[in-house]
Amino acid sequence: MSDPQKKSEPEHSTKGAYVTGGEFTRDTNYIEDRVVADVEAVRRAPREESSNIGDPRIAGLTENAEAWPVEAGRYRLVAARACPWAHRTIIVRRLLGLEEAISLATPGPVHDARSWTFDLSPDGRDPVLGTERLQENYFQRFPNYPRGITVPALVDVSSGGVVTNNYPQLTFDLSTQWQKYHRSGAPNLVPGDLVDDMLPVIKRIFTEINNGVYRTGFAGSQTAYEEAYGRLFAALDWAEERLANSRYLMGDHITEPDIRLFTTLVRFDPVYHGHFKCNRNKLTEFPNLWAYARDLFQTPGFGDTVDFDQIKDHYYVVHEDVNPTQIVPLGPDLQNWVSPHGREKLGGSPFGASTAPGPLSAEETPPGANPM
Amino acid sequence: MSDPQKKSEPEHSTKGAYVTGGEFTRDTNYIEDRVVADVEAVRRAPREESSNIGDPRIAGLTENAEAWPVEAGRYRLVAARACPWAHRTIIVRRLLGLEEAISLATPGPVHDARSWTFDLSPDGRDPVLGTERLQENYFQRFPNYPRGITVPALVDVSSGGVVTNNYPQLTFDLSTQWQKYHRSGAPNLVPGDLVDDMLPVIKRIFTEINNGVYRTGFAGSQTAYEEAYGRLFAALDWAEERLANSRYLMGDHITEPDIRLFTTLVRFDPVYHGHFKCNRNKLTEFPNLWAYARDLFQTPGFGDTVDFDQIKDHYYVVHEDVNPTQIVPLGPDLQNWVSPHGREKLGGSPFGASTAPGPLSAEETPPGANPM
Repeated sequence: MSDPQKKSEPEHSTKGAYVTGGEFTRDTNYIEDRVVADVEAVRRAPREESSNIGDPRIAGLTENAEAWPVEAGRYRLVAARACPWAHRTIIVRRLLGLEEAISLATPGPVHDARSWTFDLSPDGRDPVLGTERLQENYFQRFPNYPRGITVPALVDVSSGGVVTNNYPQLTFDLSTQWQKYHRSGAPNLVPGDLVDDMLPVIKRIFTEINNGVYRTGFAGSQTAYEEAYGRLFAALDWAEERLANSRYLMGDHITEPDIRLFTTLVRFDPVYHGHFKCNRNKLTEFPNLWAYARDLFQTPGFGDTVDFDQIKDHYYVVHEDVNPTQIVPLGPDLQNWVSPHGREKLGGSPFGASTAPGPLSAEETPPGANPM
Repeated sequence: MSDPQKKSEPEHSTKGAYVTGGEFTRDTNYIEDRVVADVEAVRRAPREESSNIGDPRIAGLTENAEAWPVEAGRYRLVAARACPWAHRTIIVRRLLGLEEAISLATPGPVHDARSWTFDLSPDGRDPVLGTERLQENYFQRFPNYPRGITVPALVDVSSGGVVTNNYPQLTFDLSTQWQKYHRSGAPNLVPGDLVDDMLPVIKRIFTEINNGVYRTGFAGSQTAYEEAYGRLFAALDWAEERLANSRYLMGDHITEPDIRLFTTLVRFDPVYHGHFKCNRNKLTEFPNLWAYARDLFQTPGFGDTVDFDQIKDHYYVVHEDVNPTQIVPLGPDLQNWVSPHGREKLGGSPFGASTAPGPLSAEETPPGANPM
């Protein structure tokens, strides 16, 4: 069993992060358990280095981690619609058609120092887990769990304990370990022949873009801010160029890196541009990235999982240190997300020989602003 | 002599403003003295209502106000480059060629609760007035002056006292009272035949746009913010439409309302869009307003008086209640201000039969970022 208290911890916040020397640093120590197709094989495999997390090919477990069996109905995915790290899992679950196998709980966008709550449920408790706060599910697994109460978290429904919150591996495992429950026609988001090329792209997207916006917005000094801003826009310029002649990041079809980039892009103009001072230009001012983002947005599984209200409420209300008034901006106008993107001219298709997911159920349709 | 202490005062800040019931309200009580061409005639004229301030045709003085004679070298204009209300006076002074008649002091962009300082001067004192803080010049005129220490302020050099800080009238008086010292070829910024049509435009620009961005950014509640945002963008949409077929606000040539709109537009994307949450869209996303703003920017007297660094530093550092980190954003990219604007196709010309001002002196060139 993994014991997060054994690791020496920097001071952390509920953001799962800390600021040191002016620079924002994300706490990347997570509960590294895995839910896998073959528990015994994974337990027998040599222990993996933590640095291998975030590779769809890893065969075993990291030190102190445990393996859990893939089983329909056993786990509940707790994923706030506001959170980009959780949003990944919502998209992947939907693209793969895992809705029946793994149920979804969506904490509200606004939380206090004790983090995410099920305040959107009618009685303020998750109807399946019965808890008011996700913290209770962390404590059920590890009493006095000392680190950030983060989403996404996969919870074992019968015990109520968190199995993993290790998002760099979680979506890969949904692709590679849950195949038995994938829908017919589900895309392969991590094609074996692309993995070697994909991992550096994923790493760059994570360190420079997904986390780069946070590094910029939570910088503790002007110098740290300026350095973070430079790194962020250098990476966005790289992505802009990469997407000039390629419909998706890895070529003709959607793969995992597209999902990881999308969740930051869709939050860029509504939040990061103003709130995090990532304001060299708006997403709408990158011709290729903006067309690419709309192409994805208009693809089933992407735009239909976006809740712009929850996204804005989360950042502007929770980060009182950045936005003490907690006033949530009305802008930007979002209608342009459904405008023609013109990316068909590059060839390719979202899912290749696979198919798009069907319509979203009414129950899982985001309640907030969405121009689709 | 005007005595501002006689007026009953709401609680005020150095911003010359207060917030009541969630709504930001600008304190519009100023030192209403005037510098005029014919002191005796103005003193003899019937007293004006304060509501008449901001009309280039007013003949007299408001209650308790005094008339001062136009005289080259007698007054010093204190106008921070950061401040939009002061920026007006810098532009008008330059367009009219009053640089020799009225000298210019430019306080730095960042100030504390005691307001503007001459911290950009080598020894921290204004070389002509000898003061460190503009507050000293207010106190020289009115000991314990109780209201905001605001710019622009016209100071009587020999006594060191503030003559007027009444910006709604000040630029009109530069046009109508200082004609003796205008340069040859100076434009008429308040043509008599346009004044009746101009005043409602000026009023709308003031209440809805110049002050509208502050009402939006300093709103004390979500409701007040949303109402202010609606008013602001309604007015910008009105201006956008007005400028579709008209090169300038009042027709074919630059007049006073253009100056008043420009000082807000030039600050819109660098400051108001993010810092004040005026983010339905950027200025660059209004086709007509953006081309119009660039047309003005590229006209002598406008862009060459802009200091983007001071503008950004002022808002982001001084307003700790809005931006507690005081980190100043690096964006937006400003090079687009010098891109072709295409407004020539509408006909007209900046100054008609008048001429553009000559090159700016090295001494008065803004030190900070400017793409010109």
